Amino acid sequence: MGKDDVKLLSMWASPFCMRVKVALAEKDVAYEEILESDLMGAKTELLIKSNPVHKQVPVLLHDDKPVVESTNILTYIDEVWPAKPLLPACAYGKSRARFWADYIDRKEFLDILMYLDGTLGEQDYFNGDTFGFVDILLIGLTSWFPAFEKYGGFKVEDEYPKLAAWITRSYARETVSESLTSPEKITNFVGMMRQMYGIE
Amino acid sequence: MGKDDVKLLSMWASPFCMRVKVALAEKDVAYEEILESDLMGAKTELLIKSNPVHKQVPVLLHDDKPVVESTNILTYIDEVWPAKPLLPACAYGKSRARFWADYIDRKEFLDILMYLDGTLGEQDYFNGDTFGFVDILLIGLTSWFPAFEKYGGFKVEDEYPKLAAWITRSYARETVSESLTSPEKITNFVGMMRQMYGIE
Repeated sequence: MGKDDVKLLSMWASPFCMRVKVALAEKDVAYEEILESDLMGAKTELLIKSNPVHKQVPVLLHDDKPVVESTNILTYIDEVWPAKPLLPACAYGKSRARFWADYIDRKEFLDILMYLDGTLGEQDYFNGDTFGFVDILLIGLTSWFPAFEKYGGFKVEDEYPKLAAWITRSYARETVSESLTSPEKITNFVGMMRQMYGIE
Repeated sequence: MGKDDVKLLSMWASPFCMRVKVALAEKDVAYEEILESDLMGAKTELLIKSNPVHKQVPVLLHDDKPVVESTNILTYIDEVWPAKPLLPACAYGKSRARFWADYIDRKEFLDILMYLDGTLGEQDYFNGDTFGFVDILLIGLTSWFPAFEKYGGFKVEDEYPKLAAWITRSYARETVSESLTSPEKITNFVGMMRQMYGIE
């Protein structure tokens, strides 16, 4: 894999960028992370050129060809580096993973927790025994949970114990803990934004 | 393919169902179409059981296993019946097709026509030379164009001549013309709905 030129246009607080970082770590792909300055800063020329339609991170530059949208990037990564597949082997299993991916991406986040808790059931991961596609899509978003808990007045662990156990299990993976921005940093950031907009 | 048991839960006016019908026709897969009664009718038990989360058509039942969401179903069809691929062969081409698929599915329809006209450019189809994934996603929606034109006061041909030529080219395919509900029937239906809701 040494010959691949892989860059990731990223932003530290974005759960969508974290997804891509986890996937690259799971695949053991080396890459250079290029950080957009911050949420409010002007967008770089490289970002606008690479994603002219949405002008959003994450963008994966593979040998300078841009792939955009985090779920799309994950599918691309799984196709280009097929070892340790993120998606199930059979077409039906794949269709189920894509269904949940789409579900996670379209809904308001707090609305979907109940369904996800039920879908997880007694399994270790959303794919079954192995950490995979749907797990990665979801784990990035969980970095914002402590902020939701602090300011939203609900507790994931009380309401959705299976999901909470899955979060703990996933964070025990180095590919997750080393790729995700710490929930504390996100919580501090949300607190700062709330002050700035006079919410408290 | 004779051994596959393929059923499609469908509704005649749905462009999302038309997508699946075109894809099955392109793949030459025989199937039984099971029509939900109408837009306002009660949902059948089979639909609710097959798609408990969204309770929406289309649902593809392949050997009784349900696959839901039209774009997801198209990817599934392309994987299970790989002859005459709908998606490009290379991972990068696939990622581009998925990008446009997502774009088509998330935006308000009229907002995307300009971009699509530009993307099509001088190509015959969105994939290039062959009718494929993105073409199928889009062609289902075009059955509603004449209704938009009649009641929305804009003309696709005047504004987006490349897209209009692409529609004519695509309708020349039997897999399209025989799978899509006629635009006249949709226009009549929209007129009826408008009367019913007192819009005119």
